[in-house]
Amino acid sequence: MINRLVENIKRTGAPIVVGLDPMMRFIPEKIQSRAFQEYGETLEGGAEAIWQFNKEIVDHICDLVPAVKPQIAMYEQFGVPGVAAFQKTVDYCKKKGLVVIGDIKRGDIGSTSEAYAVGHLGKVKIAGKTFAGFDEDFATVNPYLGSDGVKPFLKVCQEEKKGIFVLVKTSNPGSGELQDRLISDADNRPLYEIVGEQVAGWADELMGDSYSYVGAVVGATYPQMGRTLRRIMPKSYILVPGYGAQGGKGKDLVHFFNEDGLGAIVNSSRGIIAAYQQEKYAGFGPEGFGQAARAAVEDMRADIRQALDETL
Amino acid sequence: MINRLVENIKRTGAPIVVGLDPMMRFIPEKIQSRAFQEYGETLEGGAEAIWQFNKEIVDHICDLVPAVKPQIAMYEQFGVPGVAAFQKTVDYCKKKGLVVIGDIKRGDIGSTSEAYAVGHLGKVKIAGKTFAGFDEDFATVNPYLGSDGVKPFLKVCQEEKKGIFVLVKTSNPGSGELQDRLISDADNRPLYEIVGEQVAGWADELMGDSYSYVGAVVGATYPQMGRTLRRIMPKSYILVPGYGAQGGKGKDLVHFFNEDGLGAIVNSSRGIIAAYQQEKYAGFGPEGFGQAARAAVEDMRADIRQALDETL
Repeated sequence: MINRLVENIKRTGAPIVVGLDPMMRFIPEKIQSRAFQEYGETLEGGAEAIWQFNKEIVDHICDLVPAVKPQIAMYEQFGVPGVAAFQKTVDYCKKKGLVVIGDIKRGDIGSTSEAYAVGHLGKVKIAGKTFAGFDEDFATVNPYLGSDGVKPFLKVCQEEKKGIFVLVKTSNPGSGELQDRLISDADNRPLYEIVGEQVAGWADELMGDSYSYVGAVVGATYPQMGRTLRRIMPKSYILVPGYGAQGGKGKDLVHFFNEDGLGAIVNSSRGIIAAYQQEKYAGFGPEGFGQAARAAVEDMRADIRQALDETL
Repeated sequence: MINRLVENIKRTGAPIVVGLDPMMRFIPEKIQSRAFQEYGETLEGGAEAIWQFNKEIVDHICDLVPAVKPQIAMYEQFGVPGVAAFQKTVDYCKKKGLVVIGDIKRGDIGSTSEAYAVGHLGKVKIAGKTFAGFDEDFATVNPYLGSDGVKPFLKVCQEEKKGIFVLVKTSNPGSGELQDRLISDADNRPLYEIVGEQVAGWADELMGDSYSYVGAVVGATYPQMGRTLRRIMPKSYILVPGYGAQGGKGKDLVHFFNEDGLGAIVNSSRGIIAAYQQEKYAGFGPEGFGQAARAAVEDMRADIRQALDETL
């Protein structure tokens, strides 16, 4: 699946992943009321609204980008109907040729991590048959519990040729509270470097053609750390959140890429899916939210390409 | 809800939470085949089997214990039908008077953590109305992303009078890889102490009658760390996994309690729900798995009470 992600990125020329993190306030009135008419002002109605919204976004961007990243929290908040909308979204995006990164940030101890890995990337056994639960192509993984919590994901990735992105340095302001702490028994290097070294080790064990099935999440908001981590994890794709709404810009991103112009994929969520609510794209109106998203993707691609052209 | 947890613990005399982590291999043949007859050998059939299994376990233990802890990973592996079985289990346990700790180990950045908090402990807004998604009483939270990832949970806990258990020191062998690292800018104390101090701060801000809505997870497998963390977080309930199957024993647990005999609740999952598969309880047979679970709870309660009586 890492090979297909790399191919998709080369084909589109866009190292971009669109975060499908639908919030009710992003969803145009018309889509909401249509969903409520059919399913009531209920969890089912809310879930239908986010699914219809997603569908139209995906239809407008699927030829431009290599991948999407639905954030499962935004679906879980609508309970079981929300989780069903997550599954529909995953299935639809795959049908449209997109690589799907499930932003699930799961992580637990051995047998429990195994259940998460099976549910999101693998297949569960029932009476001798096997079934895929959610069936994303990649999943994000929280490493806080240690390598015995990550390894069950590696096992499933190997079997299924799928991949993970391990949280190494997140994009939020509070990420430093634990992730930046200096470790005295590791030459006073920060914790995120230790995690980065773990990722590099796992990455070596699970290589695709040119990059590994094991990637890392490193926030665009910390470009200098990105430079260091790029060096520590040369074979890992870096999933870079924090572009746009969180403050990251094209020029901050160049350190996350390798000299081959590959090795990083930059996420933008509300900057794309709610573009029509920005002044810049307001002309599209709420009806044109899909076209606004498309225009925002094109602008983001140009911003990143310009930054890369100036540097690499 | 922390007040009700403490009341339930006093009433039952059992500082025990039963982990509802159903795996197919725990579920007696008869329950499986009945579920498959009705729903087929499908994800739905698997989900029905774990739900029927849970129901019978809960019926046999609900008067003996204060709380249950369904591990959502075990349900997510069955996809959407599994998540629906999770919800049914949560609802049923609450109807039976049990406090429900959703072992979800979620944690993300601000708005995303808010969505998780809303989905599992709070209410989502749809067209001016509010709806609960999963509606557990407590949830476990991963602190790796920093306090801006935890605070949205605190906000919802305050509104809903619900609680969280923050992962401080997990029970698995690999937990030390990150959690035990010594932090040079904090007098070479381990990372879990730093997290414990954060928990103590959050706990002070959100007090119930005698204990806080903000608790911590500390593994039974590390009793000496439990002693230190008990001191650092005097007002936090400690959720202690790792008893039984993972190797923790009654005598390892005493350091997790305060002198009032309260302050800790010990989890056992397969040691209870799959008790009938142990030699000790084999006499109950697969048909008697509920009674075996009940006997295992009684033995666990006696083990813990003896250890506490000898020490406190």
